[in-house]
Amino acid sequence: MTPTIGVFDSGFGGLTVLRALLDRLPHAQFAFLGDTARLPYGSKSRRTIARYAVESARFLVNEQGAEFLVIACNTASALALDAIQDAVSVSVLGVIEPGAQAASAASQTKDVLVIATDATVQSRAYTAAFRALGLRAIEKACPLLVPLVEEGWIDSSSAAGAVTAEVIRIYLAELTAEAATHGFSPDVLVLGCTHYPLLRPFFEAAVPAGVRIIDSAQAAAEAVVHSINSRIALHGNEFQAVPPNAQLRCFASDSVEKFERLGSRFLGRPVGNVQLVDLGG
Amino acid sequence: MTPTIGVFDSGFGGLTVLRALLDRLPHAQFAFLGDTARLPYGSKSRRTIARYAVESARFLVNEQGAEFLVIACNTASALALDAIQDAVSVSVLGVIEPGAQAASAASQTKDVLVIATDATVQSRAYTAAFRALGLRAIEKACPLLVPLVEEGWIDSSSAAGAVTAEVIRIYLAELTAEAATHGFSPDVLVLGCTHYPLLRPFFEAAVPAGVRIIDSAQAAAEAVVHSINSRIALHGNEFQAVPPNAQLRCFASDSVEKFERLGSRFLGRPVGNVQLVDLGG
Repeated sequence: MTPTIGVFDSGFGGLTVLRALLDRLPHAQFAFLGDTARLPYGSKSRRTIARYAVESARFLVNEQGAEFLVIACNTASALALDAIQDAVSVSVLGVIEPGAQAASAASQTKDVLVIATDATVQSRAYTAAFRALGLRAIEKACPLLVPLVEEGWIDSSSAAGAVTAEVIRIYLAELTAEAATHGFSPDVLVLGCTHYPLLRPFFEAAVPAGVRIIDSAQAAAEAVVHSINSRIALHGNEFQAVPPNAQLRCFASDSVEKFERLGSRFLGRPVGNVQLVDLGG
Repeated sequence: MTPTIGVFDSGFGGLTVLRALLDRLPHAQFAFLGDTARLPYGSKSRRTIARYAVESARFLVNEQGAEFLVIACNTASALALDAIQDAVSVSVLGVIEPGAQAASAASQTKDVLVIATDATVQSRAYTAAFRALGLRAIEKACPLLVPLVEEGWIDSSSAAGAVTAEVIRIYLAELTAEAATHGFSPDVLVLGCTHYPLLRPFFEAAVPAGVRIIDSAQAAAEAVVHSINSRIALHGNEFQAVPPNAQLRCFASDSVEKFERLGSRFLGRPVGNVQLVDLGG
């Protein structure tokens, strides 16, 4: 009766969500799929993202037996959550809604800033989620941040890290200037991409005073833990702890070597053997 | 008898090759395909890149009637040229060979530096092409440069342009340090990605004294012009000049709006209406 939780991302970023889950759910098994053959989703259209995400979700549910699905990718959550929910019969949780809930709880002014990929921003999914909660949001696409993380330029004491710091300074200056233009008084910055937690020290150094950082990956993980723990509370004696080395299976649609190499940076531990899967396109 | 030249890239970068062709081949028509749904190829495996590139090549030859195919993408040229040549019956020219030829002609020391995407570098296609010409090459992947170009951070007088300049300085410092370690005396830097011509002023400001810059996009265009002009010299009176507004048809596998918006930056003129095509994957 140990539940299998399927975690899906276009690449490796979703491993930051998985990282927050593994420690806190020793009674669950995890199947992680990175659709690395077709990443990044962030620069693609809704139609294409939905098709890719549905194929990936079906793999996790139909072939890996996932009973609960976490869309650990802001872009797919923003553009394909409905399509995924229509395509599979299990519960599906994205990262937008938990991120918006956490930001709403943290904000006093009810004005928030959101940074994310191009596709996530264009979807206006965060703006819609915040509006439903009575908050105003200004979103900004930051397309350089994912490649900076993947290049590993995340050591703030190096010349490379200084580039990352300057890129973040420029993006945040543009975003806060736009917020001021609209008369916003933001007190929360939402990290709306699962790559961004690896840049958290840079954001902490760069945000204006009084602005709190909310990480949608962390918020989504907490929502999953809450949901699974509710099931465990109901059916506790049916669940068994899983040995740590049997807790995780990883799949990628391309380049398992790169996944194994980069993945540990996001997961905070070795990802183990990654299996190649053909999602058919 | 006006020939149709098919030009293919994973994205927009190949428009820099097309730009160099349009002016110089008024007797040709062009069909350009950007496989934007599946870009960037630069971070994917050989198997995946070859499959995508063959589907794209077949579209240009079988559906658009291309009689000559230019693979205006270093990554696809490096990893899929053989597969494309096997899949279509027309002449196929990539950018690696012309780039290597031009660099060889420009080099006195016969040691060259190559910068390109991750997949191009990992293929060692440039190293092999240079070895066949009796030159030594050191290659370096520069994954941040494509997103910097696509973000438009290419004005050297701006804070954003200063970031691009610093990224290029770091990459070139690492590359020249590695060259020195191996006892190389490079006098040529090959721009092995069709995005890089838009960064040419930055490279000119950053390369060590005595190092010449060779642009593989420009070299490939010159090879195509030479080949087509040879045909025109043989069959001259069968060719007719094409009105400029009928010279180019552009296709993209995703997000034609983005193509229309970004493409003009690469082409140096409006790309016109871009048609969406489904390459089936």
